[in-house]
Amino acid sequence: MAYEFKVTRRIEFSETDMAGIVHFSNFFRFMEMAEHGFYRALGYSVIMDQFDPPLGFPRVHAECDYRKPLRFEELLEIHLLVKEKRPRVLTYLFKFRNVTAEPVEIARGILAVVCVSHTPGKMEAVSIPPELASQIEAAPAEMLI
Amino acid sequence: MAYEFKVTRRIEFSETDMAGIVHFSNFFRFMEMAEHGFYRALGYSVIMDQFDPPLGFPRVHAECDYRKPLRFEELLEIHLLVKEKRPRVLTYLFKFRNVTAEPVEIARGILAVVCVSHTPGKMEAVSIPPELASQIEAAPAEMLI
Amino acid sequence: MAYEFKVTRRIEFSETDMAGIVHFSNFFRFMEMAEHGFYRALGYSVIMDQFDPPLGFPRVHAECDYRKPLRFEELLEIHLLVKEKRPRVLTYLFKFRNVTAEPVEIARGILAVVCVSHTPGKMEAVSIPPELASQIEAAPAEMLI
Amino acid sequence: MAYEFKVTRRIEFSETDMAGIVHFSNFFRFMEMAEHGFYRALGYSVIMDQFDPPLGFPRVHAECDYRKPLRFEELLEIHLLVKEKRPRVLTYLFKFRNVTAEPVEIARGILAVVCVSHTPGKMEAVSIPPELASQIEAAPAEMLI
Repeated sequence: MAYEFKVTRRIEFSETDMAGIVHFSNFFRFMEMAEHGFYRALGYSVIMDQFDPPLGFPRVHAECDYRKPLRFEELLEIHLLVKEKRPRVLTYLFKFRNVTAEPVEIARGILAVVCVSHTPGKMEAVSIPPELASQIEAAPAEMLI
Repeated sequence: MAYEFKVTRRIEFSETDMAGIVHFSNFFRFMEMAEHGFYRALGYSVIMDQFDPPLGFPRVHAECDYRKPLRFEELLEIHLLVKEKRPRVLTYLFKFRNVTAEPVEIARGILAVVCVSHTPGKMEAVSIPPELASQIEAAPAEMLI
Repeated sequence: MAYEFKVTRRIEFSETDMAGIVHFSNFFRFMEMAEHGFYRALGYSVIMDQFDPPLGFPRVHAECDYRKPLRFEELLEIHLLVKEKRPRVLTYLFKFRNVTAEPVEIARGILAVVCVSHTPGKMEAVSIPPELASQIEAAPAEMLI
Repeated sequence: MAYEFKVTRRIEFSETDMAGIVHFSNFFRFMEMAEHGFYRALGYSVIMDQFDPPLGFPRVHAECDYRKPLRFEELLEIHLLVKEKRPRVLTYLFKFRNVTAEPVEIARGILAVVCVSHTPGKMEAVSIPPELASQIEAAPAEMLI
């Protein structure tokens, strides 16, 4: 049973804005990147076309609180934690740490994704397939603080 | 006194993803675009370098709820409403409508920005300058529902 | 017969980088945006799913020469000109002008796109459909200088 | 003396478009990412503020030829080669290989960057500082084919 995933990435020039810091919208790309890494670590891709009809995980809610700026070439650690598992919805908490030097938490995000089946012209919420759901559990409460 | 701003934009190909819909992170760029248009309509730019030290408005919180997908070439209306005005923080509500045909609300977002002064190597929260603050008020409660 | 298209857009904050100017990769998004506007002006979308199999226009070559920087909130005019029309390939020239004040040419780009048909798992170069090709011609040579 | 640099990255969902492949504009971000990694490997950052006035490397030309599509989660190798070294301008060649399975060249790019000094309100082309220039040489001709 898995409830966390970590990935580190170096900030690229194209991710900065004229304020000299990472543009706030990029933190949502970083969350998604960690989420997809989490599925890969479990042997899955977010594009689950081994199912018929194929499944996907569109986002229904996303949020982020920004505490400190992040700059070009700094190292960002994205720590995904499963916040809640429901039959059709997974909610993730993300702790962003600047690990260039002494690790410092700089932002915190949330992403809620719903499992849907794709039939031509239609998306319908469905239960997360048991093969995947059985591998995922919510993180211990003390890690979600 | 201003409390709202509307802008319409056509979805670009580069804003879609392989699911065939607008990538969720772009809604945060769209919010910011409307926010900056709001300041321009009041005669200001978000980069307020007529002040000394110059002022800026970094984001401290951003969130979005997604209800319906949005596709290439569709027309998106972004309706900014001032949700709350505090001495140092402005909170905006955004109603996203697909106005390609009959208008349909497809998403709703929130952005909280804090006024800071930029001195070399330092950002410090300060009061929104009265010239700008005096032109902005919270939207009527019934518009924020 | 059409051989040009113009569109103006205001530079967004998210399009700048820490050098305080528009990130160079965005000029390629701007070219594509003008190209798609050109097709729309002719009554087409770049996603031509009224054909069977559906047609698309992937890029085979893109280039840009940068002469002057472009900044936040400045107005950019993108002037598309048809440089060459071949049976399967369209080549466009783009003149980028900063029209915030006195117009100044700031960059120049080229995009070559090939018409392909999409059958499951396969893309194949095909002739541009006559309905579309018959509406497009190369711009006069003196405009391409 | 250095004349090449390699980096591998996994394609992210946000880098795809509705055609199901990597959006062509991202290849320019990938080139820049490899260029900056090349400077870091030599002990430099592209933001050279240890010099007075600080130096930068704006792009003056960028181009890319696309041969094969690249998809979500595939592994992309970016191989930077120094194509030409002039006193103020460095030109790089990039070979893009899909290395998910048997390596296949999928695109090829060029980037020309000019060394400039930043004084307030002005950018001026200057010679690349000898400490950096002395570490860089053009790649052997046979590697540039």
